[in-house]
Amino acid sequence: MRQETTGCKSTKRRRRSSSSDAKPVRMTRYSPLRHPFAPQKVFSEDEINNIHNTALRVLQELGLKILLPQARKIFAAAGARVVDQLVFIGSDMVQAALQSAPASIRLRAANPVREQVYEEGAMLFSAGSGCPNANDLIRGRRAGSLRDYEEALKLVQSFDVIHKLGPCVEPQDIPIHLRHYEMMRAQLEFSDKPMFVYARGSAQVLESFELIQRALNLSDEAFKNGVWATTIINTNSPRMLDRPMAQGIIDFARAGQMSIITPFCLAGAMAPITVAGALTLQHAEALAGITLAQLARKGAPVSYGGFSSNVDMKSGAPAFGTPEHVKMQLGGGQLARHISLPWRAATGAASNVPDMQAANETQMAMWGALMANATLTVHAAGWLEGGLTFGYEKFINDVEVLQMLAELCVKPQGNDAEIGFEALADVEPGGHFFATQHTMDRYKNAFYTPLVSDLGNFGTWQEGGAKTSTQRASVVWQQVLADFKRPPTGAEAAACVQSFIAERKAAGGAPPMD
Amino acid sequence: MRQETTGCKSTKRRRRSSSSDAKPVRMTRYSPLRHPFAPQKVFSEDEINNIHNTALRVLQELGLKILLPQARKIFAAAGARVVDQLVFIGSDMVQAALQSAPASIRLRAANPVREQVYEEGAMLFSAGSGCPNANDLIRGRRAGSLRDYEEALKLVQSFDVIHKLGPCVEPQDIPIHLRHYEMMRAQLEFSDKPMFVYARGSAQVLESFELIQRALNLSDEAFKNGVWATTIINTNSPRMLDRPMAQGIIDFARAGQMSIITPFCLAGAMAPITVAGALTLQHAEALAGITLAQLARKGAPVSYGGFSSNVDMKSGAPAFGTPEHVKMQLGGGQLARHISLPWRAATGAASNVPDMQAANETQMAMWGALMANATLTVHAAGWLEGGLTFGYEKFINDVEVLQMLAELCVKPQGNDAEIGFEALADVEPGGHFFATQHTMDRYKNAFYTPLVSDLGNFGTWQEGGAKTSTQRASVVWQQVLADFKRPPTGAEAAACVQSFIAERKAAGGAPPMD
Repeated sequence: MRQETTGCKSTKRRRRSSSSDAKPVRMTRYSPLRHPFAPQKVFSEDEINNIHNTALRVLQELGLKILLPQARKIFAAAGARVVDQLVFIGSDMVQAALQSAPASIRLRAANPVREQVYEEGAMLFSAGSGCPNANDLIRGRRAGSLRDYEEALKLVQSFDVIHKLGPCVEPQDIPIHLRHYEMMRAQLEFSDKPMFVYARGSAQVLESFELIQRALNLSDEAFKNGVWATTIINTNSPRMLDRPMAQGIIDFARAGQMSIITPFCLAGAMAPITVAGALTLQHAEALAGITLAQLARKGAPVSYGGFSSNVDMKSGAPAFGTPEHVKMQLGGGQLARHISLPWRAATGAASNVPDMQAANETQMAMWGALMANATLTVHAAGWLEGGLTFGYEKFINDVEVLQMLAELCVKPQGNDAEIGFEALADVEPGGHFFATQHTMDRYKNAFYTPLVSDLGNFGTWQEGGAKTSTQRASVVWQQVLADFKRPPTGAEAAACVQSFIAERKAAGGAPPMD
Repeated sequence: MRQETTGCKSTKRRRRSSSSDAKPVRMTRYSPLRHPFAPQKVFSEDEINNIHNTALRVLQELGLKILLPQARKIFAAAGARVVDQLVFIGSDMVQAALQSAPASIRLRAANPVREQVYEEGAMLFSAGSGCPNANDLIRGRRAGSLRDYEEALKLVQSFDVIHKLGPCVEPQDIPIHLRHYEMMRAQLEFSDKPMFVYARGSAQVLESFELIQRALNLSDEAFKNGVWATTIINTNSPRMLDRPMAQGIIDFARAGQMSIITPFCLAGAMAPITVAGALTLQHAEALAGITLAQLARKGAPVSYGGFSSNVDMKSGAPAFGTPEHVKMQLGGGQLARHISLPWRAATGAASNVPDMQAANETQMAMWGALMANATLTVHAAGWLEGGLTFGYEKFINDVEVLQMLAELCVKPQGNDAEIGFEALADVEPGGHFFATQHTMDRYKNAFYTPLVSDLGNFGTWQEGGAKTSTQRASVVWQQVLADFKRPPTGAEAAACVQSFIAERKAAGGAPPMD
């Protein structure tokens, strides 16, 4: 399947032998997934037009402050009016970008089985990301370390309902100018899913790309023609794009890699207090990012994104899984379909511990993303404290929900065999179906098998130690980590990049862009 | 508004004065609600036809075992073939019943503000019901008592997102032949919402009806022409209807009160193992109950109901909030719409404690009911242990979810004022919207205010005692109970029935039907 065979020649032989068993270790059916429900609306078509057109007006009349000179030059060269750092983007430029942005993007992976098609109707999940801290019942809350990052990668790799990688925990024990080396090496070593690269300036981004190329034996051409890396671009709402983010859009576009433009619009703080107002700002900023990507390289893979929610008006703290968050997801989905692009949403939780609040917030926004038919739902497992902590027990409980949602993608059948009139006739009134042929033929695979849920009665549960699902989840993740085996490509991919990383480290690393 | 003024004359004066302030104490906007999302499907139209027609075949060819002679006589009189206890119900009889069953039912209440219209599109919730035990953090798990039942009533009364009453906790400290007196008195005293009456035989049912009539000053005519009481009828799946349930259908129909016919079909145990098979059984049994109601009194208020889920194939224990449960809800909704009747679904949780599992199970099935556009979702707050326990902290956390879902019924607006282009123009790039007029005009009511969720950051949360949402919920329910005030009608209604109850108790009470 893979035709790219240049580079890292020393490992070619091993590579070939491992590709024959290049299947995920855990064989379940949660990938790829297609949305089982029709997208729902909160706005009328007129209202969506109004929001879209107002967003265009924002770009044209109010402009966007773009801190990176190179990005302003790209806009100016395309005919945009630039006044100091303000860029006024005309609707024609946006429309052209929406014409050239691809509606379907193939996300490549070290293991072809892990590849995904990123397009309308696809349903992808990625784990809680960008967390500076980690938390679990055994070791408590702590600043994120490389060990935590690697453990999170192993957890993500172990559940096929998580479809792509994200920077779950920030490995703060690795200096920032060396961090990308370890993050790329760890992804390559412990996973074979579509990868994530932070947009922290060209030096780190281009080195990260090179690491992927080397590890996966990709020629320049092969790399550029496939999406091997994605990044998240957060705008600085309102109406600002900082230097590393603008640079990231340009670098990813030119390298043929995917940036997901995601304004983080908190209604009542950095965005207008209304759902429509926050979405207008989200839409304007996302359109600006998409336009920059298309100006940097026409046809570049780029995704619409939205992570709009509200703040708590008492404390100013961000809130997630609120009714307003859900409404913004639904409106965001309408806007993405309005411009015919796939899009990313996010779930989330403000809760500080893996409790009922955490579960309810996350699942509420998860259903919002489902009802909005988000292509990718980020932070789908493990997010706590509004993203300040990656919670291990929370991750396991969230994966349970994701697996149940994935089960909903398989529709039941309503034919005669499934209905089983004969089984109904076989069983006396008041009897049971345990022993009917209809049951015997199906009982092994009829129902979803829970990951962490305890379905036993109170007595059995008490005898088992009266553990909460948080406590049971602690046992689950420890077992998953203990059982973890590197993917078939892992050892080789990591070995492949070892000398390059050592060389770059010796040369002083690559500081992030300010 | 209320025209029924006969009976209980001694309290007439007080009644008049209290009706002027007959409003719920807690003024929020969660009643009445209409479904915000379009109903979703799991089966094609052909498959639904197939399930419906097979259910008719089950009734016609296999028959239903009905233990109550009076019910068999009613069917026989209408032309059904009866062999011993087996009743074979023809499709024509079912079709006629579906023609005469009302599609819209007004649920009356002591307080007219609490009335509901039970019909397709309406979204009603009732609390966890039928629980033999109660559980809270202060007093632990215990057999349900009258105190627990009354406390649950007070909690239900205090949140307008719970639209009708149910038998939340079984008051086991009251002998069964006297229990209905206390349950009716407590409902009348502590609530003014649509009431619930257990179908435990004619003696208790008819006395319960009389208690409502006396307490609310209703003439026989007025009572019969309005739905003042509802009951849940559970069939004994597969294909059996026991004596009190059959009697309940007849008594409620003849008294113009609503029975909700709810087969409890657990796939793999008392129902076929497939979604389609379990639903076929559910449908057949529900149609039989609806038909009996219509034969007992043409046009009687009766609801389609479904509570199908699966069992855990390891332990045989019932499971709730599973993917199979959700699929059965979606199929159940399709079947209800197929016969053009409003219908009841149920959420649920197998978890033994108010933890993430409990929250995830309940919310999962809650969304299933939403996607299936259930008219009434039972067990929507407080259910634990598959219904064996009413959990106080679980109740509060579930109400949080219900209130958030209720908020989704209000669509945001997308007009120019809401979008706020001027606000967007007012705020500099990178600035904030805290002080804009657009924000100032709206901040008080812009967002849902959480009931139990803590949106503070980790530090603030730690300073506040690092409480989980379960621990915080304990404080909430204690406060709600401490603040509780009887509804305006409460004292009078309870006083009104006092002498009748004393009389009936002195006469020995009313044993339930076997």
